[in-house]
Amino acid sequence: MSEAAGYSVEPWAVTERGLDLDGLARSESVFALSNGHIGLRGNLDEGDPHGLPGTYLNSFYELRPLPYAEAGYGYPASGQTVINVTNGKLIRLLVDDEPFDVRYGTVSSHERRLDLRAGTLSRQVEWTSPAGDSVRISSTRLVSLTHRAVAAISYVVEPVDKALRIVLQSELVANEELPPQSKDPRAAAALSHPLVSEEHTAHGTRAVMIHQTRQSGLRVAAGMRHLVECDSQDVDQEMTTEPDVCRLTLATRLEPGQRLRLVKFVAYGWSSQRTRPALLDQVVAALAGAHVAGWDGLVAEQRAYLDEYWAGADVELDGDPEVQQAVRFGLFHILQSAARAEQRPIPAKGLTGPGYDGHTFWDTETFVLPVLTYTQPAAAADALRWRLLTLPLALDRARELGLDGATFPWRTLRGWESSAYWPAGTAAFHINGDIADAIVRYLDATDDADFERDVAAEILIQTARLWRSLGHHDADGWFRIDGVTGPDEYSAIADNNVYTNLVAQQNLAVAADVAARQSAAAERLGVTEEEMASWRDAAAAMLIPYDERLGVHPQSEAFTDHARWDFAHTRSDDYPLLLHHPYFDLYRKQVVKQADLVLALHLHGHAFTPEQKDRDFTYYEALTVRDSSLSAPTQAIMAAELGHMELAHDYLGEAALVDLADVWLNTSDGLHMASLAGGWAALVAGFGGMRARNHQLTFAPRLPAGITRLAFRIRYRGRRIAVTARRDEATYELLEGPPITITSHGAPLDLGNQAVRQPIPPIDRKDRPTQPPGRAPRPRGPHPAHHDDR
Amino acid sequence: MSEAAGYSVEPWAVTERGLDLDGLARSESVFALSNGHIGLRGNLDEGDPHGLPGTYLNSFYELRPLPYAEAGYGYPASGQTVINVTNGKLIRLLVDDEPFDVRYGTVSSHERRLDLRAGTLSRQVEWTSPAGDSVRISSTRLVSLTHRAVAAISYVVEPVDKALRIVLQSELVANEELPPQSKDPRAAAALSHPLVSEEHTAHGTRAVMIHQTRQSGLRVAAGMRHLVECDSQDVDQEMTTEPDVCRLTLATRLEPGQRLRLVKFVAYGWSSQRTRPALLDQVVAALAGAHVAGWDGLVAEQRAYLDEYWAGADVELDGDPEVQQAVRFGLFHILQSAARAEQRPIPAKGLTGPGYDGHTFWDTETFVLPVLTYTQPAAAADALRWRLLTLPLALDRARELGLDGATFPWRTLRGWESSAYWPAGTAAFHINGDIADAIVRYLDATDDADFERDVAAEILIQTARLWRSLGHHDADGWFRIDGVTGPDEYSAIADNNVYTNLVAQQNLAVAADVAARQSAAAERLGVTEEEMASWRDAAAAMLIPYDERLGVHPQSEAFTDHARWDFAHTRSDDYPLLLHHPYFDLYRKQVVKQADLVLALHLHGHAFTPEQKDRDFTYYEALTVRDSSLSAPTQAIMAAELGHMELAHDYLGEAALVDLADVWLNTSDGLHMASLAGGWAALVAGFGGMRARNHQLTFAPRLPAGITRLAFRIRYRGRRIAVTARRDEATYELLEGPPITITSHGAPLDLGNQAVRQPIPPIDRKDRPTQPPGRAPRPRGPHPAHHDDR
Repeated sequence: MSEAAGYSVEPWAVTERGLDLDGLARSESVFALSNGHIGLRGNLDEGDPHGLPGTYLNSFYELRPLPYAEAGYGYPASGQTVINVTNGKLIRLLVDDEPFDVRYGTVSSHERRLDLRAGTLSRQVEWTSPAGDSVRISSTRLVSLTHRAVAAISYVVEPVDKALRIVLQSELVANEELPPQSKDPRAAAALSHPLVSEEHTAHGTRAVMIHQTRQSGLRVAAGMRHLVECDSQDVDQEMTTEPDVCRLTLATRLEPGQRLRLVKFVAYGWSSQRTRPALLDQVVAALAGAHVAGWDGLVAEQRAYLDEYWAGADVELDGDPEVQQAVRFGLFHILQSAARAEQRPIPAKGLTGPGYDGHTFWDTETFVLPVLTYTQPAAAADALRWRLLTLPLALDRARELGLDGATFPWRTLRGWESSAYWPAGTAAFHINGDIADAIVRYLDATDDADFERDVAAEILIQTARLWRSLGHHDADGWFRIDGVTGPDEYSAIADNNVYTNLVAQQNLAVAADVAARQSAAAERLGVTEEEMASWRDAAAAMLIPYDERLGVHPQSEAFTDHARWDFAHTRSDDYPLLLHHPYFDLYRKQVVKQADLVLALHLHGHAFTPEQKDRDFTYYEALTVRDSSLSAPTQAIMAAELGHMELAHDYLGEAALVDLADVWLNTSDGLHMASLAGGWAALVAGFGGMRARNHQLTFAPRLPAGITRLAFRIRYRGRRIAVTARRDEATYELLEGPPITITSHGAPLDLGNQAVRQPIPPIDRKDRPTQPPGRAPRPRGPHPAHHDDR
Repeated sequence: MSEAAGYSVEPWAVTERGLDLDGLARSESVFALSNGHIGLRGNLDEGDPHGLPGTYLNSFYELRPLPYAEAGYGYPASGQTVINVTNGKLIRLLVDDEPFDVRYGTVSSHERRLDLRAGTLSRQVEWTSPAGDSVRISSTRLVSLTHRAVAAISYVVEPVDKALRIVLQSELVANEELPPQSKDPRAAAALSHPLVSEEHTAHGTRAVMIHQTRQSGLRVAAGMRHLVECDSQDVDQEMTTEPDVCRLTLATRLEPGQRLRLVKFVAYGWSSQRTRPALLDQVVAALAGAHVAGWDGLVAEQRAYLDEYWAGADVELDGDPEVQQAVRFGLFHILQSAARAEQRPIPAKGLTGPGYDGHTFWDTETFVLPVLTYTQPAAAADALRWRLLTLPLALDRARELGLDGATFPWRTLRGWESSAYWPAGTAAFHINGDIADAIVRYLDATDDADFERDVAAEILIQTARLWRSLGHHDADGWFRIDGVTGPDEYSAIADNNVYTNLVAQQNLAVAADVAARQSAAAERLGVTEEEMASWRDAAAAMLIPYDERLGVHPQSEAFTDHARWDFAHTRSDDYPLLLHHPYFDLYRKQVVKQADLVLALHLHGHAFTPEQKDRDFTYYEALTVRDSSLSAPTQAIMAAELGHMELAHDYLGEAALVDLADVWLNTSDGLHMASLAGGWAALVAGFGGMRARNHQLTFAPRLPAGITRLAFRIRYRGRRIAVTARRDEATYELLEGPPITITSHGAPLDLGNQAVRQPIPPIDRKDRPTQPPGRAPRPRGPHPAHHDDR
């Protein structure tokens, strides 16, 4: 798995030894650095070779037209797409006139290391030029978690065995040539030369360039400032600027043992409104701040920030070192995607690549925000505040669609709907309930009264209005929501999707409660008691279809009447099915791309009896092909809840190793934030059994054979809580905050100033559910008894 | 209605007096001439001004890319679109150097007349130039029904009151400039300059030019040849040719009373395979044939052909002269669309305009072919033979979609699927059952054993295979067809659409019967007795959903559980709904664009009891908004069957007057062949009550108050039969062929060599069903009692 992909297996870092030129784009995603505002792909310092050069700023986008051979009312005319902005990480090196390029000469050693505690990407290279001149290069890069606008690079070069002429060129480059993007609609549309130069200026070692996008009219300023240390006194230094290139050139001659060190501070600012001088000043100021902190200061602040994070977020695992590494890798990247986003979206791929056009989807609220809610709650709140900022657009969209309240976009960067295929876009209204669910979770986990008043009330009220207008009562009094698309993208436009109806039910009920509590907001929005009553009535009357004959819930009404997919005649290279079969055929058959009903079993488990969960899980396991990375985490959690510990372990592996093992062969486009988050969830909600609802925090730890110890920390209502699970016993410890009562395997436990131990009850061995032929997850743990079953 | 649109109301012609320059595009469609192979829009002889210049050859198309912002498996990459080929109808006139143009000078009289018995478009103009010179112009145009490749024009000009220099330019012009097309996706994409010149040549008064399309690689040859008669001896004559223009110039000086007459023969040939010389020879030969026949010969043959047609097709009507004219206008254009198509498709707009890209849809089989089957059966057979020619593409498409047998394209010109929106395209599988239904109807009406063996067997077998693979048996043994789209385009992707399941049921059962009879074909196609049995089983087990509570059939399963459209809050300018509401909302609610369940009541009436028909019709009347021209005919027929005679009359008017009254404000793009056909069906199947099935020919005539007599003729199994209905009595007459037993209002009648009279039984007055507010059809007949009801 990850060893095979070229990375070491170690607990607190990802190290690549050697360099796989064919896998550059993948490693650029894995080694991406970000603080949620700035994102730098792990491109080599010298720029060439690259898989895909990438420097991104959260919410900085260009518009592109969305073409339709047959247009329809309400189809978005243009979409937003993330663009590669000015590249500030370029440092080119010439050794006695030979450009340093790993494709030429001899690379005697090459190591890159992402340090999950330091928050840095470092690189050590020894290279001999085609002319036989050897140098040692050492660079370290960070995107600051404490200086939002700043990235920095320390670059050191020295000759190995003889004196050499060394030239460094540190650059800002706009409008880099990009390789042609794939035809896969999920990859971003390439937009060539999107930036129009407005200004380029230099002063000493500092240069700034300002550009504007052609269509979206956004302005971006990028600046660099340098510190030079050289063991030779004779360093020639020149700064030049052009519209798309600013270049600081350092030239010197070094004896063996002498080093040239360049510290490069890079700063970015962008705005849709602010003037050129304002942006320029902002970048110069950010560079000054970084300069004052200095390289060592930035590094120290970075580690302190991360120490604080890990103190409330770390997960330890004995028995599966690959997953140990992967879950920390995931937690690190999730923090990176959100830490300083500050009321900007968290895209599906963070700021690690251009996949999905840089859009955010429901994944963020349903998969990523749970992690942040319990580890970095302020970042979860900020992501939801961004939804509030886009609420006016969601209100407009609902009106355009003939609905009340607000409907949030299926995929977007700036807040406008960017989905060009409505059956799997606009029709997936559950995203509104997912946002409400994330709000409910955040409020439960924080008791953040300001947030309820200032953010939650308005979103919950407007989404409740949406649901009330989207559904209707039938002749029997049931509240139906017809013709919508649930999470499973192999079904669409169906009636009474169980998951959707459950998120709507919660949304309606909670909105009524919050409107009652937040009377000022409710009054401002014109909520009447009659309206609140109509929400409560609709919630109470919500139709949840059930197939009495089979004793299972149909994913949507009539689902279980449909033909089962012909799994027996589906070859392994037919997957993912959507690339080899038409939507119409997928939609009309019993085949599940990703957990849908099973997601309802997890997130809305109170709506099901344990026996129903058992039967439903087994039924849908046999139909679920996992052509989406959003599936395995939920399957892991429900497998664990239902006692299928080895199956849960297998799904955990698939979720957590999504990018280190490049499970979907598209890590090159960017990391899979939701799946990475799902790795955490598979451990914490799966093997830890954690559920939190209505101020009830419950755990039900239980481990698979291959994991001997699981320890994790969460933040909950101002506390830090540590949970440690071993084979037969769980330990709970309150690390910080006032006493709290929790539940362990159904028993209430008072958690005060000392750790509490609880035995883990044994579980009856159950038959392992089966998956469609060839679609079982890769086995992880030592469970030979099952190997023969498949 | 039609008077308001500027046309006279007369029984056998459409005459326009004066010239509505804003309505030119509309009149060009109304006055279009075609023989099913060549189509000429009714452009003015002199070309300018025009609404939309148009010369079409059946199946001559260019490819255009179909763009998708989010592509999917099985989406067609390019579509076919009809293009404007070489214009051979141009005759420009100069009067003392002033170009004749109706926008300048003074038009003292202008009359155009489409003669439905002669098959000609004639024009009389008196015009005074800006310089004060007056001329009289008389032209007559025809597209020959007897010479498939030929059109001809007789053009006569004379000075009115003083001697004038007269110059005529008779041209062939390729790549005419076209006005920008509308943004309406239903209108054709403009393709500018699609033709690349290959050859242009002239000899005497004959010229030929050959072009090829850029993408589709089709070659077209257009030729002209002339006869000149002049009362002045001194006529200067010159022929010039260029790549895109061939021009014969005639110049003379005429005294008042002297005339210059030009007869222009135009011929076309096209091929995807034949060489340039072969095509050139073909056109020269066609011109020679026309020349031998001469103008008078062509005119005489044209009338003889039409006399024979009307003898077996005419419909007479007393009491509603507008509809009298409209039904003959419709019959004429339907003949024009099909007469010499000869194994080419019949497009939705015939060859009268570029609407819908020149594509053919299910409309042809379901609406147009019934008319042809009972009036010009050879043309119906040819249209179905075209489907057989495209069967290999339909087999490929089924395989691409993972299905057995054949699936015919939703919209096409050459046989490839050209629909870019699968929920209302590929998913509308009923087209396969519609083709089968047309075959069943044709076989019943002709006993054409060759056709059954050579055409019907293969299509029926391959479509039966489609249905068998598209549906499945559920746990109760019912055969379900899930996730398809029925005729109503305000619903999509639904389970067990009643109409679809009924056409599938018939298709499966008939295929089994035909395979048993045509054992050679069955054997060649590998049909086993097991396979035939599986078709019969599926047909017998076909699920037809029924809502016991409401006592009506849901259009598709669960339809009656959905919310009703909020008609009360829908403003009149919200129609057509698809331009103001998203598909998702239309699909999920009870609102019907066009007859769907009601079409099943008509075409598969045996599957319903009279009481069910009554309840179903009333139920769907209240939901049907008729945003499609395919709805009113069927509503007329079922209203008549169920005794709502005045409502039927209203719908008849809307159907029959579709283009003469420009009901949809888009007659400019071409005529609505299906609706025109529906005008005939509303009279014959509606007020005549004609049904034919299993060699049972039945009638049930009954007239609305506004129609005092209805007489129509049909061809059936080698006979011509005349039916005359008056208020209380029907008369049946066998005009030609051996005796036959028919049924009149349930009573068997032997029809031999004398007319048979039958009283028409009285009918109980019923409550008129109501339509959504504002969506009742315009009242036609004298039925004041109902006016107050609405």
